[in-house]
Amino acid sequence: MTQTAASVQDMAHHLHPFSDNKQLKESGVRVIEKADGIYIYDNQGNKIIDGMAGLWCVNIGYGRKELGDIAKNQMDELAYYNTFFKTSHPAVINLSAKLAEVAPAGFNHVFYTGSGSESVDSMMRMVRHYWASVGKPSKTILIGRWNGYHGSTIGGASMGGMKGMHAQGGLPIPGIEHIEQPWYYGLHNEGETPEEFGLRAANWLEERIIEVGADNVAAFVGEPIQGAGGVIIPPSTYWPRIQEICQKYNILLVADEVICGFGRTGSWFGHETLGFKPDIFTTAKGLSSGYLPIGAVFVGDKVVEGILQGGEFNHGFTYAGHPVSAAVALKNVQILQDEKIIQNVHDVTGPYMQQKWREMLAQFKYVDDVRGVGLIQGFTLVKNKATREMFPNEGETGTALRDIFFRNNLIMRACGDHIVASPPLTITKEEIDLMLATAEKCIQEFEANMDAKLGA
Amino acid sequence: MTQTAASVQDMAHHLHPFSDNKQLKESGVRVIEKADGIYIYDNQGNKIIDGMAGLWCVNIGYGRKELGDIAKNQMDELAYYNTFFKTSHPAVINLSAKLAEVAPAGFNHVFYTGSGSESVDSMMRMVRHYWASVGKPSKTILIGRWNGYHGSTIGGASMGGMKGMHAQGGLPIPGIEHIEQPWYYGLHNEGETPEEFGLRAANWLEERIIEVGADNVAAFVGEPIQGAGGVIIPPSTYWPRIQEICQKYNILLVADEVICGFGRTGSWFGHETLGFKPDIFTTAKGLSSGYLPIGAVFVGDKVVEGILQGGEFNHGFTYAGHPVSAAVALKNVQILQDEKIIQNVHDVTGPYMQQKWREMLAQFKYVDDVRGVGLIQGFTLVKNKATREMFPNEGETGTALRDIFFRNNLIMRACGDHIVASPPLTITKEEIDLMLATAEKCIQEFEANMDAKLGA
Repeated sequence: MTQTAASVQDMAHHLHPFSDNKQLKESGVRVIEKADGIYIYDNQGNKIIDGMAGLWCVNIGYGRKELGDIAKNQMDELAYYNTFFKTSHPAVINLSAKLAEVAPAGFNHVFYTGSGSESVDSMMRMVRHYWASVGKPSKTILIGRWNGYHGSTIGGASMGGMKGMHAQGGLPIPGIEHIEQPWYYGLHNEGETPEEFGLRAANWLEERIIEVGADNVAAFVGEPIQGAGGVIIPPSTYWPRIQEICQKYNILLVADEVICGFGRTGSWFGHETLGFKPDIFTTAKGLSSGYLPIGAVFVGDKVVEGILQGGEFNHGFTYAGHPVSAAVALKNVQILQDEKIIQNVHDVTGPYMQQKWREMLAQFKYVDDVRGVGLIQGFTLVKNKATREMFPNEGETGTALRDIFFRNNLIMRACGDHIVASPPLTITKEEIDLMLATAEKCIQEFEANMDAKLGA
Repeated sequence: MTQTAASVQDMAHHLHPFSDNKQLKESGVRVIEKADGIYIYDNQGNKIIDGMAGLWCVNIGYGRKELGDIAKNQMDELAYYNTFFKTSHPAVINLSAKLAEVAPAGFNHVFYTGSGSESVDSMMRMVRHYWASVGKPSKTILIGRWNGYHGSTIGGASMGGMKGMHAQGGLPIPGIEHIEQPWYYGLHNEGETPEEFGLRAANWLEERIIEVGADNVAAFVGEPIQGAGGVIIPPSTYWPRIQEICQKYNILLVADEVICGFGRTGSWFGHETLGFKPDIFTTAKGLSSGYLPIGAVFVGDKVVEGILQGGEFNHGFTYAGHPVSAAVALKNVQILQDEKIIQNVHDVTGPYMQQKWREMLAQFKYVDDVRGVGLIQGFTLVKNKATREMFPNEGETGTALRDIFFRNNLIMRACGDHIVASPPLTITKEEIDLMLATAEKCIQEFEANMDAKLGA
């Protein structure tokens, strides 16, 4: 990393999230100045393929000038007003109608937030309020999964199962349980098929419910596909069985769609692709393609009905349904619709990416468990494919490869030793070819380094 | 409230924050269509004085078109990029330098969030991380105050002392203590001066620290002036004594500046007006005047130094330092500076408002404890000024007056039976006169209703 003047100025005043800021002050940061389509450009003249769509969010790609026009017009007209005191405004009214239109049947209401973290935190408060409202106040426990990611508030980080986050500040808070993730590659028994494993993994939920008592459980919360956990895609049997269990024990089923929502998997929402029907789902990111901060909790009719019986819900954020964010989100959703972007991911670019991804990665000896659906994909770096032995010092090897990608002007992400990608949904077949050709070159370099290091 | 078509459409799909949505579906909502200066306009042709600056946030007033231009330009150039993976961008770099410039000495770094709630939640995680980083991991307890407001995440609502929020979802979470608020009017002893009460109230902190053990306490957290609690302004002796206590017991002092920050009290930050020096302070609202969602935690040099020793801080939000929000916030801060808006609040409109506010309210028999500084002010509705007897059913009387204000096209807020106002900082003397004349007429109507009701 070159220490440009801008980098030095940044580090003088800016503490970065999820970073070792002491190390950053030494290494410096890369300064991104502009972006267009799938490309970002730094202040050193580099043109970089953004294989992560910002942070799983720039679904429509960068540089769509209509969104700036919309933002300006809305800001000139009504830059802000709250929705607390019996007031609303056209931008949030129009967005709400549009979201009810694109949501699956049975989802007619949204509760607004400013981010995925706030969506998850709101959902946690809402499901408990729901049960109290329908006369079952003992149902308060939330069950999530190890290696799940549900944002970074104290509530959301507790709901998630990231042990590094739990290690700071005494998390998780009480009332939250975690079961093991449905990670077939790492957790299946000898001879167990993915379908068998999916049922066994789902049954961990039933076991936990019985352990803590169904009368105490409010909801099960999971990402359709674990994103930051390393793009962990459960076997096809997993979610239908989870749904059965939730119904059997009268427990709300919550999908955290912050990453999967708004087209990432080739459907509007990940639970449609994965084949289940939640009672509530949380969103952000793709809702505005990250052009402005906004999140939304989609609340199913059953839950709405319950909450309406509960009087005032004492919860909300100043920027809930922010007019400018709402106007930009509406235009973003319209672009996804009008340009059939999600349909195209489903029919064309998703299948193409997944096929080429698997073909390209088949050659590598440290690459295994190649996976993906739509435009979210991953693979795992392993020391020995035959034995599925992972590399020591989890994350070190992934980061080494991630750094090679960065040096070669390709952004992909390492989640431990899982390498993941999630490009803008507007990526073309030609751009997929280019992205994969770059990745291939990088992984070749990585494997040569690895061979040298391991003396292979 | 008239049930316009827009209101009906709103209620079909939009769950409002801090609302009884069942009641709202019956009453309907007021639809705000545009805004300019201190005025908002609804879809019924009403021109309304916004005496609350949106929600304590539109410090520079509505309709500043420069901000829309900035938003559009930034969105065209770089609509989004993250600051997680050793990257930054000019908008957040420039904002960070500007914030270090306007912050008091010793505050050179900011950590970005998307809202006041996220700022508070981040601060809670950060102070615990700080103590662990400097080798005192047992210091985890956070002490706040009853009737304090620190946002609406599970963490922030627990940090705050709003009993209605605690009543839902099993809050507060463990590790948080609350002491009584420094509310002289309601809590002083017979014959006790405000200065004496201020010291006594501050000493409640010392008593609690001794009770839980200084080695277990991470921080004391308070709003310089309690905003949503009803604009509770502590006596002049309170904060200096709090600071002494925090120093004595080696406890971090945190100011929640979400409402007071960026000029509300006639200084850049409320702690400057109230006369103390925190180690960390949280902001949002006035940082962007609410034009776009953004929050920031200002981290003092001592805390930065500690955190740099602690390795990675496993915390952050996708929209931390969002380019468009950052660009708009920077322009907002520049406007506050260039137009000397805060200086004008300090020298001209603040003193004028406070004088006229007191003069106008002196006539009323149910209005007491008239108070304020800069452009934040409040009074309390009481049944009997001589005995300081409050009205029964806390909040009912306040809401009745609030509804009269609304019907007369003036937005003020009821926090229980405290009536509060917080207009845009750009309000002129003439507009203050108009606002107060409207308020006067409303309170006359209220008192006549009250007299009839009480048979006085």
